[in-house]
Amino acid sequence: MTQASTANTTARKRRYSAGLQLPYTHLLGDADSREQLPTPSLLVDEEALGRNIARMAQFTRQAGLKLRPHIKTHKCSQIARLQLAAGAVGISCATLDEAEAMADAGITGILLTSTIVTQDKLERYLRLLRQAPDTLLVLDHPEPVSRLSTLAQAAGLQAGVLIDLDIGYHRSGVRTEEQAGAVVRAIQDSPALKLLGVQAYSGAIQHIAGLDQRKAVLTEQMSALSRLLAHIQASTGQLPICSGGGTGTHALDAQQGIFTELQAGSYVFMDADYARIDLGEPPFETSLRLRASVVSVNCDDLDGDERFVILDSGTKSFALNGPAPVCLTAPWENASFRFMGDEHAHLILAPGSAPPRIGTGLEFQVSHCDPTVHHFDHLYVVRGETLTDIWPIDARGRS
Amino acid sequence: MTQASTANTTARKRRYSAGLQLPYTHLLGDADSREQLPTPSLLVDEEALGRNIARMAQFTRQAGLKLRPHIKTHKCSQIARLQLAAGAVGISCATLDEAEAMADAGITGILLTSTIVTQDKLERYLRLLRQAPDTLLVLDHPEPVSRLSTLAQAAGLQAGVLIDLDIGYHRSGVRTEEQAGAVVRAIQDSPALKLLGVQAYSGAIQHIAGLDQRKAVLTEQMSALSRLLAHIQASTGQLPICSGGGTGTHALDAQQGIFTELQAGSYVFMDADYARIDLGEPPFETSLRLRASVVSVNCDDLDGDERFVILDSGTKSFALNGPAPVCLTAPWENASFRFMGDEHAHLILAPGSAPPRIGTGLEFQVSHCDPTVHHFDHLYVVRGETLTDIWPIDARGRS
Repeated sequence: MTQASTANTTARKRRYSAGLQLPYTHLLGDADSREQLPTPSLLVDEEALGRNIARMAQFTRQAGLKLRPHIKTHKCSQIARLQLAAGAVGISCATLDEAEAMADAGITGILLTSTIVTQDKLERYLRLLRQAPDTLLVLDHPEPVSRLSTLAQAAGLQAGVLIDLDIGYHRSGVRTEEQAGAVVRAIQDSPALKLLGVQAYSGAIQHIAGLDQRKAVLTEQMSALSRLLAHIQASTGQLPICSGGGTGTHALDAQQGIFTELQAGSYVFMDADYARIDLGEPPFETSLRLRASVVSVNCDDLDGDERFVILDSGTKSFALNGPAPVCLTAPWENASFRFMGDEHAHLILAPGSAPPRIGTGLEFQVSHCDPTVHHFDHLYVVRGETLTDIWPIDARGRS
Repeated sequence: MTQASTANTTARKRRYSAGLQLPYTHLLGDADSREQLPTPSLLVDEEALGRNIARMAQFTRQAGLKLRPHIKTHKCSQIARLQLAAGAVGISCATLDEAEAMADAGITGILLTSTIVTQDKLERYLRLLRQAPDTLLVLDHPEPVSRLSTLAQAAGLQAGVLIDLDIGYHRSGVRTEEQAGAVVRAIQDSPALKLLGVQAYSGAIQHIAGLDQRKAVLTEQMSALSRLLAHIQASTGQLPICSGGGTGTHALDAQQGIFTELQAGSYVFMDADYARIDLGEPPFETSLRLRASVVSVNCDDLDGDERFVILDSGTKSFALNGPAPVCLTAPWENASFRFMGDEHAHLILAPGSAPPRIGTGLEFQVSHCDPTVHHFDHLYVVRGETLTDIWPIDARGRS
């Protein structure tokens, strides 16, 4: 290690032992610490992560777009800081809890991409707005608009809001010109609210594997977006923000000339789902791995498809919604993965291959990065075989 | 409220504001606090939970069995304490992390039901054994037996161990007499290890819906268990512990006369999966509910199957592996549930029924209790419409 990185490691060990309750800090900086990590655990390749962050920053800059990356993927303020340092205008959050955790970590430019509607959460939103005044919220119904307006006026605050548009995914948002008009009027009625733009996000489209099929669905959705946007602009004038897009469509989104900023998030980590998707060009690397141990090897009496060993990682580690995790550790790349409950899985050995010894550490490309990260409290950051940092997943929590 | 319960509530408010970082303690004891809880959140009906705990305690006592309930269901030391107070001899834990959290909370009689094999975890196990000397571990291979033996001898400790038997589920354990013999000999070779019995758990069988089909599979597995147990006893003498069983088979397990103790866990909460299973008699109640809010209502332009509202609870709240969550809040019991990503779901309205207003709180029987609880940090304990306590899910964490 260089002198600078040794000093870094010492500072990190001190930081952790001083305050944060983090496990396994004693391994920081040890040459072979990666293989001593407890399992199941999530590892991030520091260099691959850095390249992914730089590439998306460069892509959006060259496309003339702003980047407000979605942190529901990583839920980690350390990664959000790296994204902001690379030029992001802020971050997108899925839940109020995430937004509060990020604001507590000093992150600014937060867009809350899910509407909130209850009195309690609207009050929490105003506390957040006092702490981080540039925080934005999406809304899709006159009732919470009016409720927020009353609360904001009473508190003497002004909230910047976007209208959430449903352009075909049917998760949230207004779908018709009538619905959009009602929300616009409710916002215009309130001196405490400032309409800054629209959001249009389409989750399922990100996962359409073929580039042409994805392009066809996107084109249809962009026409719905243009129509609703034109209708809203007719009564409000030009709006500064049109936010949306994702990792799966980022190259296509940029060609449409409609979005002003992208919310892509998964590009930081990638996963087995994105690995099977044709992104046009493959500019992002798998930087996230789940490390598991082989904890039971009693397959000497088994044949064929049923020669398996047991891993200590099940549905409480790997997310279920995605393709099966892929073993990245040689020579078991051709072994297949099968869930066996909350804490265990089978690694089914390819014909003729030797089983790993009991205790062997194996690393996997995860099924789906967002809900996998949600299972864990920490990211172990590695560079080669060395643990270089441990980052709390500080926005992990209720959904 | 009675004077005693008011005093309790005051003490709880003080406890929480003093030390623990818990949310929403200001609602404790308020008459209509249930409907003010944030969403998504997990609620436990204190009275139904108490009845479930008492019923399983009484059942095992009458059957002449010990109860060592599995806490991977609730991961909550407060519930473990209630189970011990009702007569359980200890608890079962799925992971070393769970066992450490429970020991830190003062729980004794811990059985770690998953084998551990790496140097690091075996060392942590010995630290746990120093803290809670009656902690038991299952093993299924001579290598970790020998590694534990060396470590325990060096530490001057004696560890009580069980042999894990695979009786048909193929998750872990020895399957053949040869494999069992090798583990027995390795344990017998070590003065630091004491063989106290066997474990045989069969997860999938718990979820076979029909009682007769479940009985047929169980009978076959019990014959494998008897055979392996007799083989082990031939070289070791009678063993005091034969641990296994679960909520789905508890009545059948007790009839076999082989188990000395049951590990049932789900009976505390129950879920939509267990609700469709014929348990012979239905003695357990659904005490766990997930509360969600309706956050988007823009269905006025939709017809038929596609009349839906949006809930703030997706795959980061409800577990995916189980039947769909069931709405328990009138009049939406006939509405169906469809996942829409990490944070959202559709509630598809039954034909002719009125949509709930935006902001309405709805409660659900969860799909599968164990992995649902794993998503959350707290249980909100309710009695009628009142929040009576907040329990940290203190063993939530890596797997």
